[in-house]
Amino acid sequence: MAEEKALTPRSEDFSAWYNGVVQRSELAGYSPVRGCMVIRPHGYAIWELMQRALDEMFKATGHQNAYFPLFVPESFLKKEAEHVEGFAPEIALVTRGGGKELEEPLVIRPTSEAIIWPIMADWIQSYRDLPMLINQWANIVRWEMRTRPFLRTLEFLWQEGHTAHATWDDAQRETLLILGLYRKFMEEWMAMPPVTGIKTEWDKFAGADRTYACEAMMQDNWALQAGTSHNLGQNFARAFDVKYQTEEGEHEYVWSTSWGVSTRLVGGLVMTHSDDLGLVLPPKLAPIQVVIVPIWKSEDEKVRVLEAGAQLKSTLEGEIRVKFDDRDTLNPGAKYYEWEEKGVPIRLEIGPKDLEKRQVMAVLRSSADAKRRKLPIPAGDVAARVPDLLDQMQQGLLDAALRRREESSYRGVTDYEEFKKIMSTGGGFIYTGYCGAEECETKVKDDTKATIRVVPDEDFGSETVPDTCICGGAAQHEVVWARAY
Amino acid sequence: MAEEKALTPRSEDFSAWYNGVVQRSELAGYSPVRGCMVIRPHGYAIWELMQRALDEMFKATGHQNAYFPLFVPESFLKKEAEHVEGFAPEIALVTRGGGKELEEPLVIRPTSEAIIWPIMADWIQSYRDLPMLINQWANIVRWEMRTRPFLRTLEFLWQEGHTAHATWDDAQRETLLILGLYRKFMEEWMAMPPVTGIKTEWDKFAGADRTYACEAMMQDNWALQAGTSHNLGQNFARAFDVKYQTEEGEHEYVWSTSWGVSTRLVGGLVMTHSDDLGLVLPPKLAPIQVVIVPIWKSEDEKVRVLEAGAQLKSTLEGEIRVKFDDRDTLNPGAKYYEWEEKGVPIRLEIGPKDLEKRQVMAVLRSSADAKRRKLPIPAGDVAARVPDLLDQMQQGLLDAALRRREESSYRGVTDYEEFKKIMSTGGGFIYTGYCGAEECETKVKDDTKATIRVVPDEDFGSETVPDTCICGGAAQHEVVWARAY
Repeated sequence: MAEEKALTPRSEDFSAWYNGVVQRSELAGYSPVRGCMVIRPHGYAIWELMQRALDEMFKATGHQNAYFPLFVPESFLKKEAEHVEGFAPEIALVTRGGGKELEEPLVIRPTSEAIIWPIMADWIQSYRDLPMLINQWANIVRWEMRTRPFLRTLEFLWQEGHTAHATWDDAQRETLLILGLYRKFMEEWMAMPPVTGIKTEWDKFAGADRTYACEAMMQDNWALQAGTSHNLGQNFARAFDVKYQTEEGEHEYVWSTSWGVSTRLVGGLVMTHSDDLGLVLPPKLAPIQVVIVPIWKSEDEKVRVLEAGAQLKSTLEGEIRVKFDDRDTLNPGAKYYEWEEKGVPIRLEIGPKDLEKRQVMAVLRSSADAKRRKLPIPAGDVAARVPDLLDQMQQGLLDAALRRREESSYRGVTDYEEFKKIMSTGGGFIYTGYCGAEECETKVKDDTKATIRVVPDEDFGSETVPDTCICGGAAQHEVVWARAY
Repeated sequence: MAEEKALTPRSEDFSAWYNGVVQRSELAGYSPVRGCMVIRPHGYAIWELMQRALDEMFKATGHQNAYFPLFVPESFLKKEAEHVEGFAPEIALVTRGGGKELEEPLVIRPTSEAIIWPIMADWIQSYRDLPMLINQWANIVRWEMRTRPFLRTLEFLWQEGHTAHATWDDAQRETLLILGLYRKFMEEWMAMPPVTGIKTEWDKFAGADRTYACEAMMQDNWALQAGTSHNLGQNFARAFDVKYQTEEGEHEYVWSTSWGVSTRLVGGLVMTHSDDLGLVLPPKLAPIQVVIVPIWKSEDEKVRVLEAGAQLKSTLEGEIRVKFDDRDTLNPGAKYYEWEEKGVPIRLEIGPKDLEKRQVMAVLRSSADAKRRKLPIPAGDVAARVPDLLDQMQQGLLDAALRRREESSYRGVTDYEEFKKIMSTGGGFIYTGYCGAEECETKVKDDTKATIRVVPDEDFGSETVPDTCICGGAAQHEVVWARAY
């Protein structure tokens, strides 16, 4: 608000550009609490649209929402050995309450397995109660040292699914079902197509048997881990004694999963589409899809364009999220600038000449072809054309993101010098054979800062797995490397 | 789950009955963290319906959602003297993060004024930025010693509105606008008609100039404070230096408001309508409005009633939240019991005889006239009749609640002996004149446990203000007394 510094160009300093877009488009701001951001109305409105779409997907697949306590007794977190090891360094502890020192400190949930399972254990008696498919929308605290708005903050908002099943197969199906829903959401709503796959043993969620992830490519060719889905095996069931009675009367531990996406997705959306003018939003996630800007000089013109603008608004609203910017404290140019910066997909200008020609002038925030950014639409066609234009823009952003991803994806790389050259120039997703040794990844990371993102799923992997690892050894399978947020 | 103890009758022990309904209808459960409940899917689904209705009301009146940090630096809370005095005893403190002692402890928000105002101060520059109308859906922690599910818990969910205005008048209008929205929501959605009014000086929100409240009468004739709306004057603007530039170029402190309702409303809903069979829900807030229960003996009948049930479901869904309970692990009687306990407004039974008669048997969960609880509906009329029945039940619950409230409201009481007799027998809302002295209220409270709820708004107050206070002194105005949660 206070300063109006120009946006750092994306090509000059991606990180400064990102921070600039987030600030100037009023998605989020810094707060007086170290590492905690405030999500401003424009950013929160995007998150609400994301929530609604995801929530409908979860409910359509049989999941129910619930709410579990913010606090986890410290002793509970310690019950699953790998879990506590993974999260202990990031913990915030409540040690005083109601003016007194607590007998047992309370951890603020860094994730909720350790409070959900002791509670769900009471809800599950028999095979008839399975599967139990629960989701929670909540805030999470992880004591991160280096933070950036949306991408990594001390506190963030997310959803966390927690499910219980009768068999390993059922849990595995759920894990992959959710991975698929996440991918679908990122493609169809965010126009941010991820590569999906499974994490290495040492990159799994603390306490999981298997971790699957969505890895999306940002415009700087870095990867963003945008969602994860975990098959937890019986690890938490054993730690918290979650058993069910089978049809045959036996008592067995349940098989469980957990999965989540967070406000980090808003950061991914920014880094996937935005440009040097500011925010670019896929129409499905734009809080305002169309802004109408009236243009006038004389009072007489003002009366007529304001009337036409109000009418246009009432024609569009209902189906479209539309705003009529009739402020008379700003000139049209300042309004253009503001709404472009905030990523509104379509601006409809109405001036006296447009009224004469019975048209409105549409200006598209994103278009592969710059010449087609501005187009007149006959007044009678606006209601029909605008939804089509929004659909085309949604598709155009997805196509562009896919094209960028493929242009910066490298397959069949076997030569480490070539690998290093790619990483030190433009970077990207490099698919190689992999020997399976942790030390091999460590060396590559030390040399290039790239890490293994995933063992890619069938849809993304090469047709034949390369024979040799990037280290020269025999390959066990293929992996995708990238520098990552 | 585990125990299937019968529900304590409401007339025998209201408190045990309440806890029983909450547990048995699976609205909420206890958690291993003292004073924190877990909101189970059925309870959370009611909260989601409440959220959606309120959120639409807030947005329709120009409010935007945002999200502010969970943590408030301890020094911030201390900036508004009355505010910290009010909340200090209920604070939970984070003293360790990331393995280290914090330099300054962080308070977990007991309400967000002290973190919102230092941040919003940066968003507000000029009169053009006003009014600024912000709402937040969030979790809150207050270190309560005696807790009860929904009514009073260490952690709860709520919405908190925070607005800034250019004048006292604007802030006052906002305070009353929201009080009106709350009343409308409680009447039209919850069928829980509140009495509204202003709190006494010593019963205000800590830091407010004026506090208005909705006070609803529960079935035990106790009052539940169900929502509050505060005119904060310039108290927080001064404490956090929130100024704006006027049109004339002067710098002035803003005038602010705050207001909230919480998951406490779910408790109010239970105590307003439920009965000895369990939960009763107004149809607008029922996660399942209609349950279809098929009845069969032979396999042939099963095929036919299941087909008819599925068809009935597809006829109703879309407009109605309908569940088809086709489980074959439970007999119809067990299903009736379960869905009555969970408060589903309408049960539609389909058996072989109903198929013959081309009808379904509707059973209403709530009806003033017990004989009309069960009625056959011709199959072709179901789609038209069910929405009407739901509307009638919604209205019937509101009418019944209003009638109960008026039956237990006493006006023109001037004799303190009569007052004490009412409070010691059935209790209720007693309207009396009031001298304005805090000691007078203290004495009444010591004698009868009743407190002043509000100075009633015009819609509720007596036509003429009584001359004398219940203490015998001269009355300044009228007040409403009740025992309260």
